[in-house]
Amino acid sequence: MSKILLDVLNGNPVSPPPVWLMRQAGRYLSEYREVRATAKDFIDFCLSPDKATEVTLQPIRRFGFDAAILFADILLIPMALGRKVWFVAGEGPQLDPLSAADIENMEIGDVEGLLGPVGQTVKNLSVSLPDETALIGFAGAPWTVATYMIEGGGSKDRWNARRMYWENPEAMARLLDLLADATIRYLIMQAKAGAEVLKIFDSWAEGLPPPMFEDVVIRPTRRIVDGLRENGVNVPVIGFPKGAGPNYVTYARESGANALALDYGLNTQWALDALPKDMPLQGQLDPAVLRAGGSALDVEVDRIISAFRERPHIFNLGHGITPDVPVEHVERLVSRIRGGKR
Amino acid sequence: MSKILLDVLNGNPVSPPPVWLMRQAGRYLSEYREVRATAKDFIDFCLSPDKATEVTLQPIRRFGFDAAILFADILLIPMALGRKVWFVAGEGPQLDPLSAADIENMEIGDVEGLLGPVGQTVKNLSVSLPDETALIGFAGAPWTVATYMIEGGGSKDRWNARRMYWENPEAMARLLDLLADATIRYLIMQAKAGAEVLKIFDSWAEGLPPPMFEDVVIRPTRRIVDGLRENGVNVPVIGFPKGAGPNYVTYARESGANALALDYGLNTQWALDALPKDMPLQGQLDPAVLRAGGSALDVEVDRIISAFRERPHIFNLGHGITPDVPVEHVERLVSRIRGGKR
Repeated sequence: MSKILLDVLNGNPVSPPPVWLMRQAGRYLSEYREVRATAKDFIDFCLSPDKATEVTLQPIRRFGFDAAILFADILLIPMALGRKVWFVAGEGPQLDPLSAADIENMEIGDVEGLLGPVGQTVKNLSVSLPDETALIGFAGAPWTVATYMIEGGGSKDRWNARRMYWENPEAMARLLDLLADATIRYLIMQAKAGAEVLKIFDSWAEGLPPPMFEDVVIRPTRRIVDGLRENGVNVPVIGFPKGAGPNYVTYARESGANALALDYGLNTQWALDALPKDMPLQGQLDPAVLRAGGSALDVEVDRIISAFRERPHIFNLGHGITPDVPVEHVERLVSRIRGGKR
Repeated sequence: MSKILLDVLNGNPVSPPPVWLMRQAGRYLSEYREVRATAKDFIDFCLSPDKATEVTLQPIRRFGFDAAILFADILLIPMALGRKVWFVAGEGPQLDPLSAADIENMEIGDVEGLLGPVGQTVKNLSVSLPDETALIGFAGAPWTVATYMIEGGGSKDRWNARRMYWENPEAMARLLDLLADATIRYLIMQAKAGAEVLKIFDSWAEGLPPPMFEDVVIRPTRRIVDGLRENGVNVPVIGFPKGAGPNYVTYARESGANALALDYGLNTQWALDALPKDMPLQGQLDPAVLRAGGSALDVEVDRIISAFRERPHIFNLGHGITPDVPVEHVERLVSRIRGGKR
């Protein structure tokens, strides 16, 4: 049985398109919450191969998505650079804020050892998934991970990270290089363990002036893709420069990614006109319309399917599914996409 | 003496370009903080014509900007719809969250009476400003104001407002119409009092799927501009759909605005290529590089000046100036732009 997600990533349109959802292994599922409750904390959860394997498989069992994405977190990589990461309920990730001076002495640690449990999860998945389900590994893009490291967590406008870029470009470049190099090793490990696709999440690619977009998004992403290829990892890479707007064109041309994930705010017709015709595109349903459900959901699903009909397209949200989505809405979505087929 | 900002808005490039800064009357100025300290609260500050006039004039005296923008707040308009608005230090604006049911019974109150002090501030300014300084009035765009009203304040992702659009489009449309109609009256009052330019701030125009962008950004903005023109107000309107990305093209074509303010993340070359060649453009320095100062600031100023050289261009930030900016950086900016001229 062929994996239609891989067919699309090889440039072949498939109708109806393959579908998966960002954060599909998540709190909107009661079976996920049950497993989550057995873990000491969120990091422990990510680094427990049995638990991570189980929650990755749950949405495949329930909805028959065409791809499974490894359950992990983009903030595991800072641990491989010697930084402490912890999660506070209701507040999200926390790290010790990073200064330019800290970056000076930073080194890449034992990526494969520290993040070995993630490799084990991928191995488990590669033997557990149905034959038709593609397995996606992932990492955060260096800029996005760097913003969390510098801010010490999430932030409204990444002010300190943006200041560091303008005030100390050498420190920022060094941090991004270290992150890229650690990420190359992390993704090589995932590919060797059985990941058939790799996705790079640049969740904070929005609001970057052109020289900054080149330096903090394009250059580190290119470094990762080149590093993978030089090491014989040839699986397709999906890039997700969320919020990049017209910079999606630059990203398509220069990042080295094979396919693009589109955020929900990117003008659909513009994307179709401006992005390379043979580049597979993923997206781009608004998570808020999945929460809403009903006919609004049907109309948006139809609009997106119709817009991308002639292109290699993977149906997905334009951002992660939220914990408040009723599972019936996801069932309605999948059924609407497949229209009774498959 | 002519007002070069108005020359540019009439479609004529001026070199060096006129300059002003979003939020130029603000906390980065010690003289602003002194006046601010005399007001009971932020609303009282905005509705005290003498204080608002004084802080509007301060940055003109200090830096000789080519335009003054009325000191007020986009969240005065909800008061004209009967909603309470208050500001909590360190937390920003607060409102009672608005439900779809509340919208049903909402009416436009005495806009000119409740917001009359703002009209008085504009009158004061129109007789106090130097002959060469243009006077800009403004309002928040309906969608952006609606997000604050529905969320009860600022929010990371405007989740409740976005849900209301998909789940109850009629309630959302009614709210946006009410806001647009109140805003028309508010802006007519400002124009009659002496505002020579009007700016519409849509700070949350990012992340909107195409049908939503049409309904919540384009349609209400067009309603305002049409309402102004029907009432004989013919001053230029600058639209600022922050974060709209490729939707800036839709906005340029359909909103009715005469000029566009560009956010700092919008790709400069794309904007030059995609937006109408005769449309005046304002922007688009990153506030973080103004905070950084030094040679990074010079390089970015030069890049922007050079990029827009052939176009009618108003130099500005791509978002408001932050309270932590040293005044020396603003002096350096103005001097770099003007290169000793004027």
